[in-house]
Amino acid sequence: MALISQSRRLRRTPFSDGVEAAGVKAYTVYNHMLLPTVFRSVQEDYHHLKSAVQIWDVACERQVELRGPDAGKLMQMLTPRDLRGMQAGQCYYVPIVDETGGMLNDPVAVKLAEDRWWISIADSDLLYWVKGIANGWRLDVLVDEPDVSPLAIQGPQAETLMARVFGDSVKDVRFFRFGWFDFQGRSLVIARSGYSKQGGYEIYVEGSDIGMPLWNALMEAGRDLDVHAGCPNLIERIEGGLLSYGNDMTDDNTPHECGLGRFCDTQTAIGCIGRDALLRVAKEGPIQQIRSIAIDGPAVGGCDRWWPVLAGEKRVGWVSSAAWSPDFNTNVAIGMVRMTHWDADTSVHVQTPDGLREATVREKFWL
Amino acid sequence: MALISQSRRLRRTPFSDGVEAAGVKAYTVYNHMLLPTVFRSVQEDYHHLKSAVQIWDVACERQVELRGPDAGKLMQMLTPRDLRGMQAGQCYYVPIVDETGGMLNDPVAVKLAEDRWWISIADSDLLYWVKGIANGWRLDVLVDEPDVSPLAIQGPQAETLMARVFGDSVKDVRFFRFGWFDFQGRSLVIARSGYSKQGGYEIYVEGSDIGMPLWNALMEAGRDLDVHAGCPNLIERIEGGLLSYGNDMTDDNTPHECGLGRFCDTQTAIGCIGRDALLRVAKEGPIQQIRSIAIDGPAVGGCDRWWPVLAGEKRVGWVSSAAWSPDFNTNVAIGMVRMTHWDADTSVHVQTPDGLREATVREKFWL
Repeated sequence: MALISQSRRLRRTPFSDGVEAAGVKAYTVYNHMLLPTVFRSVQEDYHHLKSAVQIWDVACERQVELRGPDAGKLMQMLTPRDLRGMQAGQCYYVPIVDETGGMLNDPVAVKLAEDRWWISIADSDLLYWVKGIANGWRLDVLVDEPDVSPLAIQGPQAETLMARVFGDSVKDVRFFRFGWFDFQGRSLVIARSGYSKQGGYEIYVEGSDIGMPLWNALMEAGRDLDVHAGCPNLIERIEGGLLSYGNDMTDDNTPHECGLGRFCDTQTAIGCIGRDALLRVAKEGPIQQIRSIAIDGPAVGGCDRWWPVLAGEKRVGWVSSAAWSPDFNTNVAIGMVRMTHWDADTSVHVQTPDGLREATVREKFWL
Repeated sequence: MALISQSRRLRRTPFSDGVEAAGVKAYTVYNHMLLPTVFRSVQEDYHHLKSAVQIWDVACERQVELRGPDAGKLMQMLTPRDLRGMQAGQCYYVPIVDETGGMLNDPVAVKLAEDRWWISIADSDLLYWVKGIANGWRLDVLVDEPDVSPLAIQGPQAETLMARVFGDSVKDVRFFRFGWFDFQGRSLVIARSGYSKQGGYEIYVEGSDIGMPLWNALMEAGRDLDVHAGCPNLIERIEGGLLSYGNDMTDDNTPHECGLGRFCDTQTAIGCIGRDALLRVAKEGPIQQIRSIAIDGPAVGGCDRWWPVLAGEKRVGWVSSAAWSPDFNTNVAIGMVRMTHWDADTSVHVQTPDGLREATVREKFWL
């Protein structure tokens, strides 16, 4: 295992002091920022996430802020999801596509007001695309990265912990909705969302200066709940079928290939830059699609490159994420599979670094 | 020291197998790709770079390719450097600015032909900005990331090694020019350039499949030259005043603040998107500027965040990169200093994690 060389280019977050004090063991880099990946061990973190509550430094989910009269128009240009019905106070998962229909990012759009949006981004400099589009189309909108750093509270005890710090009304926030809540005199957006299937919240911490005070307040309030610093967990997110941009899909892929067709309203998303390019695939469907895959045998090593999915001698897909799941007692994986083999229960083989393994395409792991 | 968690999102390169075989000890992430930072130790690598020859996996210097009738027009829209005199076969270091004059990247532009360019980028998804501009302004140009991975050969023995593999004519390539050279039947762009002051070349390896054959051929040919796998060296690049985008400057900075005013022809760079915003600073000069700084005392730790530069109680700048230099027998640093204190030989203090240190602003280290 290699070390990570830290430098200012790999930005620290408002919570980095807390992360270090909690004994972070490994990082990845996400949007030019440090993202913790391991505290005790990936498996220990996994069991704890499913049984208690964790505080995640996901400041790397940077925001692209759109502000001004053309903000809504610009937002619709970016995505094939129809945003007409979206209200302020809602969060939408929005595939972002270029003029060819290729995915540039898969963020969550946060509608603060008719003329003010945050796009909470996955790992690519979406800011550059949005700024380029706004400039080229001469839109009346300001596009910038504000000082907003999400902190996620995830796990079955998340609601209990959050209510202690923000009051019981935080329990009323519905899934993918947000409210404004007070912390030390500062009003913060808190959404019921997060990159796990264990439930929880994301606090959009506006102002780096209150990062550590909030971190410490949550840690203090959750002492008896066995709260611990955590991070998006490789095993849990694959079990849950949560995609990772850059791992499971890139700008080579359409949203439909990524199983995100249900977030596309290609007919009615008038103004979307990639709409023309997506009309055909929206109607006819893609020829490959992301699937959950169970890989037989003992635990496989880390998936740091594509592993071929084979049917006999023929390559019918790629595995892009994989991990041993203690709860499912198998290797869980995510991959892109051609339509000839994407039906649930289809038997295939996966060429792993540990050799050829039998594998089964799954609808999903959680049914 | 924390580990790096590898995943497909942190892309491997065509040379990763060679890098691993050479015993890489640490990585950073650059353009979503693994960039080695340490082989033997930063100091050992430094001495070796200055005395022998190294092969660097800098595949992370991804290319943005512009192709089509509007390629030249688009290239000029991106930069305040006047490109009218640039010939095919030349490389230009070009600050890239947005509509506010803020730097988005500081790449090298490679002019392959009138209608075909590569932009060899620093660490930001410049592809997204260029695609957005091309789309918004409806330019007749294709913008894409080709399968081109630079491999750098750096050090005093670089020319000798390169001539053995590519023939003596590679010696005729002048600084920041390139030629086409054959390797295994493939014609490759080879430029005299690289991110060190030790001299050398960058081979634009087109086609991942020849990555390891070329790596191996160079290693084989340089055995008696003490060739070794290397990487951009922290100490050597600070001594040489080579800037690192994301470390030493961001989109908050104009090229003039970065000391790159000599690469800006703001009056004549007609068409540059940031031109209007830069006219005033081009005329009047910036109020802060990047400077070399010598920090007194024993070796400082790694600079993973801004260190304040102080004059008495007053903050007059930030250090953004620092390392102990064996050759200069002091800590060499790069920082942004306000005009009140940027003259050479000005005494200041730097607040390092190891305490307050006396420091001196320098014109540069190599005079």
